[in-house]
Parts: sequence; structure tokens; C-alpha cells
Amino acid sequence: MEKLKELIKKQGIVVSEQILNVDSFLNHQVDVELMKEIGEEFANYFGGKNITKVVTIESSGIAPAAMTALNLKVPLLTLKKKKPNTMNEEFIQTTVKSFTKGNEYQLTASKKYIKEEDHILFIDDFLANGDSALGAIRLIEEQKAKLEGIGIVIEKSFGPGRSKLEQKGYDIYSLARIKKLETFGTILFCE
Amino acid sequence: MEKLKELIKKQGIVVSEQILNVDSFLNHQVDVELMKEIGEEFANYFGGKNITKVVTIESSGIAPAAMTALNLKVPLLTLKKKKPNTMNEEFIQTTVKSFTKGNEYQLTASKKYIKEEDHILFIDDFLANGDSALGAIRLIEEQKAKLEGIGIVIEKSFGPGRSKLEQKGYDIYSLARIKKLETFGTILFCE
Repeated sequence: MEKLKELIKKQGIVVSEQILNVDSFLNHQVDVELMKEIGEEFANYFGGKNITKVVTIESSGIAPAAMTALNLKVPLLTLKKKKPNTMNEEFIQTTVKSFTKGNEYQLTASKKYIKEEDHILFIDDFLANGDSALGAIRLIEEQKAKLEGIGIVIEKSFGPGRSKLEQKGYDIYSLARIKKLETFGTILFCE
Repeated sequence: MEKLKELIKKQGIVVSEQILNVDSFLNHQVDVELMKEIGEEFANYFGGKNITKVVTIESSGIAPAAMTALNLKVPLLTLKKKKPNTMNEEFIQTTVKSFTKGNEYQLTASKKYIKEEDHILFIDDFLANGDSALGAIRLIEEQKAKLEGIGIVIEKSFGPGRSKLEQKGYDIYSLARIKKLETFGTILFCE
């Protein structure tokens, strides 16, 4: 997606060889018109798969995932990073260690919102080490739902995330793939 | 907003006299078509105020706030509940004690995304005690931006939030106002 790559080049700040700050349009301030286009792009790519639900992880995945769900005319499910005190029904959890953030959280969902008959599209803002995506997949598969695809806004292709997910046979569509982040500020794309 | 009230009546679960679970369409699973209508409603109500930015708090405010920002053709700013390690620029913080969740967090924003010339619309999923809204207002006003209005999806009108905000003269528009939650499951609306 050219517009996205241009924004990454113009506004992305290389914090380290691992960390890219895109707070101006994705993770803090959000360019909602871009999110709408991202939603259209994912809906277009995965539209033939009879998706019944879009799943994401709070909180930076929500805007692109909501726009995707709107285009596919299906509900969005936001996985929580801890069990909210309002969640009073049966739930499932899995521990996720976040490589980028250096922390650990309990990815949580109510059982009733992921069903065996669901065809799920997982959307997230970043893919790097793949730990959060794999956590989401564990919850989806624990409920015997089918994961039909994974849509990623920005893939850090220098991380092992993509190959971990490809090994499991999933269809991954990343809108921008970054080959390398250089500490003096250069962002190199895969293609 | 009648459609929202109907959904609250049909799908809302009264967890206690203070806590309403609306995980089926707002806080966990998200009815994105409803969020789109909510965005149109807020944009319609606040559209004459030359809004330059919509501000919300992660994470359940993001979907309705993103749809509002899309309708107003302005960026969304998502305030963080702690400083992300990707945030490498000057930031402002304020401590918020959450009445409903019984916890405390550091509401955080990069300085560069709230400017003196901004006319801000604050959107949130719930208003009860008003603590999170007041936290957001402290950050907005610390940056000398103008808060033009507050859009709330569900107001717990039995809480002091509205009167605290009205005392400060803000224009508050709540799409559903709940007068009382009864432990045997009844939800009473204000009008």
C-alpha cells in the first residue's frame, strides 16, 4: 500500500533497530481516513473467505480492525490484555510475552464471542516476533473457530513473526513490510 | 438514540448497581455498524464547532471516536493509560483513579498532538464518576487547547460525572442516559 509506505517514510521515527514510532498516524494520533482505506484493502483481499468476525487486540489494532469489520459487515471482537471486572461470563486466557514492549499480559476473551462456526480474520497494527498474533490464534483455536487470514498494517520483516505464522499455513497480508530499521533513521522496505 | 437504548435493554447485563456489561456490542465485541451511526450522530451534534481533533482514551472509546473523527474529517488522538516505550518525544501525564475499575493509571499524551489552536471533541464509551473525562480535560487544558464538547455513548446518570463536567460549563451529549441499574437486572433510562 503505497500511501502507507509514504507515511511511514515521512513520519515514522526510528527509535531503535527494533522499534518504529508511528504515533503520528497509527499508534497515538490516528489518521482515520487512512484507516478507512486500510479497512477497504483488507476487506477486498479477504472478502472471498466468508469472514464472520474480525478479531484484534487492544488497543492500536482497533481502528484498522473496526474499519475492516465495517467493510465486511461483520462484528469486531477486541481481545483484552487483562480480564475487565465487567466480564462476568466464562472466559479464556493465554499468556503473551510481548517482545517489543518487554512485558507479559493475559490475553482474554469471553467464550461466547468466538464460536466453532466462526470464520475469523485477525487484524493487528504490527507483526514482529509474532507473539501477540500467536496468542490470539491460541484463543481462536481453543474455541475451534477457523482462522481464515491475518491482516497486518506494518510488518517488521526482520522479525521471525511471519515465518512462525507461515509455518502454520496461514494466509498473511501485510500492507507494508519493513526489511530493516537503521539507527540513523533510515527505513528500508522489502519491495 | 433509540437503537442504542434498545440494544442496552436487550443485551446489557447488570453486573451490580454500578456496573453494566455491554460486551456484546461496545466493550468487547463491537457492533461496527452501530459505531458508524454513533459517529454520524456525534458529528451531526458537534459539527458546527469547527472541531480539529477528536480525543478519546484507550481502548473502548476508540471505535466510536474513530467513526466520529471519520465523519468530521479530522484526526483521532488516543490517550494512553501508560507511556508506551515507543513514545520518545515530550509527553504530558496525569493520574486518573478509575471509580468503576477500582484502579489508577497514568493518562499520557505526546505534547505535539495537542496544540493551543486545537478545538477538541472528547468522546468516551462511558461516563460515570467523570474521573477519566476530567483527566483527559486536564491534559487538553494543560496544552491550552479548547475543549468544544464531550460525547458519551452511555452515561450512568446516577453517578456524579455529568454534574462535575456541567459545573465547568462543558457541552455534554450522551446518547443513552441510565438513571438506575437494579441488581435483579432492570435498566431504567432517564427519559
